[in-house]
Amino acid sequence: MLNFTFKNQTEILFGKGQISEVPARLPANAKVLFLYGGGSIKKNGIYDQVVNALKDAEVFEFSGVEPNPSYETLIKAVDVARTNEVNFILAVGGGSVIDGAKFVAAAHNFDGEPWDILAKGATFENPLPIGAVLTLPATGSESNGNSVVTKKETSQKLAFASETVQPQFALLDPEFTFSLPPRQISNGAVDAFVHVIEQYLTYPVNAPLQDRFAEGILQTLIVEGPKALENPEDYDVRANVMWSATMALNGLIGKGVPQDWATHMIGHELTAIYGLDHAQTLAIVLPSLMKVQAESKKEKIAQLGQRVFGLAGAGGVGSEHIIDDTIQAVVNFFEDMGVETKMSDYDLNGDSTEVAIDKLIANLEKNGMTAIGEHGDIDPAKARKILELSV
Amino acid sequence: MLNFTFKNQTEILFGKGQISEVPARLPANAKVLFLYGGGSIKKNGIYDQVVNALKDAEVFEFSGVEPNPSYETLIKAVDVARTNEVNFILAVGGGSVIDGAKFVAAAHNFDGEPWDILAKGATFENPLPIGAVLTLPATGSESNGNSVVTKKETSQKLAFASETVQPQFALLDPEFTFSLPPRQISNGAVDAFVHVIEQYLTYPVNAPLQDRFAEGILQTLIVEGPKALENPEDYDVRANVMWSATMALNGLIGKGVPQDWATHMIGHELTAIYGLDHAQTLAIVLPSLMKVQAESKKEKIAQLGQRVFGLAGAGGVGSEHIIDDTIQAVVNFFEDMGVETKMSDYDLNGDSTEVAIDKLIANLEKNGMTAIGEHGDIDPAKARKILELSV
Repeated sequence: MLNFTFKNQTEILFGKGQISEVPARLPANAKVLFLYGGGSIKKNGIYDQVVNALKDAEVFEFSGVEPNPSYETLIKAVDVARTNEVNFILAVGGGSVIDGAKFVAAAHNFDGEPWDILAKGATFENPLPIGAVLTLPATGSESNGNSVVTKKETSQKLAFASETVQPQFALLDPEFTFSLPPRQISNGAVDAFVHVIEQYLTYPVNAPLQDRFAEGILQTLIVEGPKALENPEDYDVRANVMWSATMALNGLIGKGVPQDWATHMIGHELTAIYGLDHAQTLAIVLPSLMKVQAESKKEKIAQLGQRVFGLAGAGGVGSEHIIDDTIQAVVNFFEDMGVETKMSDYDLNGDSTEVAIDKLIANLEKNGMTAIGEHGDIDPAKARKILELSV
Repeated sequence: MLNFTFKNQTEILFGKGQISEVPARLPANAKVLFLYGGGSIKKNGIYDQVVNALKDAEVFEFSGVEPNPSYETLIKAVDVARTNEVNFILAVGGGSVIDGAKFVAAAHNFDGEPWDILAKGATFENPLPIGAVLTLPATGSESNGNSVVTKKETSQKLAFASETVQPQFALLDPEFTFSLPPRQISNGAVDAFVHVIEQYLTYPVNAPLQDRFAEGILQTLIVEGPKALENPEDYDVRANVMWSATMALNGLIGKGVPQDWATHMIGHELTAIYGLDHAQTLAIVLPSLMKVQAESKKEKIAQLGQRVFGLAGAGGVGSEHIIDDTIQAVVNFFEDMGVETKMSDYDLNGDSTEVAIDKLIANLEKNGMTAIGEHGDIDPAKARKILELSV
C-alpha cells in the first residue's frame, strides 16, 4: 500500500426530508448566492423546498449554469456574489453546478484574472463556503474539492482542486432524483463507474481493502443502475445509486493506490471540442484504453472480470479471454445504461473521425496532456491509438 | 436505506515515516499531555520518535493507561492536564489509550464529577483537542468519537460518544505494529471483525453498498489476519489489517443500516467482572448470539456465509446448513486467530460458569442493558440463553 493522507470534511445529509437540516448549517446573517442550472428544479418542486430552507437568509439567485459549466457564465455569477457581498454559496444541481460553485467561491476574493486559477494553478485565499443540494448523482463533486470548468472561447476544459472549496455539507435526497431524464441517470451511473475504474484499474499494490471497496461500488452500480432506469421512483434504488456515486469520488477508494485518469483527460477534449456529455466521452474512451493498456493493466482487468462481472468461468485466470471478456462486459454495461461507446455514434459537428482525432490530439498537446495514465506512458501517439480504436 | 448524517473529521496520516507530519498539526505554543500505556513504546523506538516530533512543544508525560482504561487512572491524568494547563493531548497507543484521552479531554473543563459524563450522560464543553498515534489496530478509536472507560470500584464498563473528542489527526504507521505481541494482533483482528459484524449482521434494508463495504473489510481481515500472525514484519499485511480496523469503526459502514452491538454490551460485562480482553469476550458471545438470533438474522447470516466465507455450495440459500456453517466459520476464524470462544477456556477467578452467568446478567441489569440488539429484543432471559450456549 502507498502512503497517504486522507480527510473528508463534508457532512453528508442523506435521505428524504433531510433538507430540514440545511437552515441550521447556514452562517449567521446569511447572504446566500443560490446557484442553479437550467430551471428544472422549478418544475419538480426542489426550488420551492430550497427557497423555504433559505427563508431566514438574504438570497441572490443565479441560474443558468450549464452542463460542463463555462467560465463565461460563471464569471457573471462571480460578479453577482461580489456585488452583493454574499457570505455563502448554496449550489443546487449536479456536478456542473457544484463545480461551478467552487470556481465562484475561489474567484470571489481573488485579485486578477480568475481563469488563472485553472490555467496557471494560481493560488487563492478565503474562498466562500459552499453547501450542496445534489439533484444528479454522478460526479462526486458534492463531497470533494475538484472542479472542472470549460472556457468556450478557447475550447479548454480544465480542472482545479482544493479542499478549501469542498462543500461544508451535501444534501443527498434520493427523491430529488425521481424526475431526472433517463439520459442523466445513464450518464451519472457511467460517470461514477468510470471514477471508480480510474482509481482501481491500474496495477496491484497489495491494497485488498481498497480493491474490495472499489469492486463494491462497481457491483452496486451494475445492479442498481439499470433498475434506476426501469423504476425511476424506486427510492432505495435511487438511494443506492446516489450513495455509490458519492463514494466513487470522495477520495476514499483512491487512497494508498495508483490512479489513472487518462480516460478523463482524453474524454475532456471530446467535450471541449464537440460538446459531448462527459459520460459519453468516458464510454467512448475507456474500452479502447483498456485494450491499448491491457498488458500493464492485465492483473486488475482480470480481477475486475472475475470479481465484478463474475467471469471466472469464462476463460479463467491467465487466459487471454478474460481480458477481452472483461472489456466486453464494460461495453455491455455502458450500452445497457443507454450510453453508446463509439465516436461514430455521436454527432461530431460534421467532422470525420479522422479529422476529429487530429483535433483531439492537438488539444491534448495544447493542454500539456502528453504523459498521462498511472505510468505516465500515454503520449499523444498512444492517445491516438486509443481514439483510433474508438471510431 | 435508512436516513443518516455522516462526517468524519479525523485526518488520517497513513504509512511509514508519516510521523514527520505530526509537528505541523500541533497547536501554536503547544503544551502537550503525552499519554501512553505500559511502556512498550520505550522498547520499540516509538517513544523516541514521538519525543522527537514533540521537540518544539512543552510536554507533560502520563504513562500507565491500562488495557480497558480505568477511571481511577485517568482521573490522575486529568489532574496533570489541569495543573499544567495543557492545550493538546497526544495519545500514543491502542484503543485504550485513545479512549482514555477522550475521557481526559472531556473531563478537562468539566465542572463536577467527570464519571457523570459516562454514568449520567452529562454534557461537557471545550474538550481538549486530541491527536492519536496508533500502535495497535483494533478499536477504530483513532477516527471516531467513542470512548469506553471502566470504573474498577464498581465493576462498571461504560461508554460515551461525542464528535468533539474525536482525534483531529491519526497517525497510522504499520511499522509501529511490527513489535506487537501476537495476542494483541489476534485481539485486534477479532475486535475489528466484530465491529463490522455489529453493523452488518442485522436484517436487510436494501443497502447493497454498505453490505459490500462491510464484506470487503471482513474478507480482508480473514485473509490478512492470519498472515499478520505468521509474518509480523510484512509491511503490506500490517498495513491492510490497520486500514481495515480503522474503516471498521469510523462510522462509514454503519450509516443507513440497522446496528446491533449486543455482543459488545454482553461482552463488556465479562471484561468488567473478570478482566477478559475485549476481543476474547466478543469471541465468546458472538457465535452464541448468532445461534439465538438466527431467525431474525437469517438473511444476513446466509449472505455472510456465501459472500465472505464462500459457503455457497455448502447447503445453499434457504438451507438450514448455511446458518450453522456460517457460525462455525466465524468460530474457526476466531480460533485461527488464536482467540478461544468458550467461557470455560478462560480463567473466571475460580467462578463456575453458572455463577459467572448469574453475575453477568445481574451486571447487565444494573447497567440498564435489558433491551439490546437491533430489535431491542435481547432481554436478560435471552442474554442468559446466549451465555449458556457459550460455556
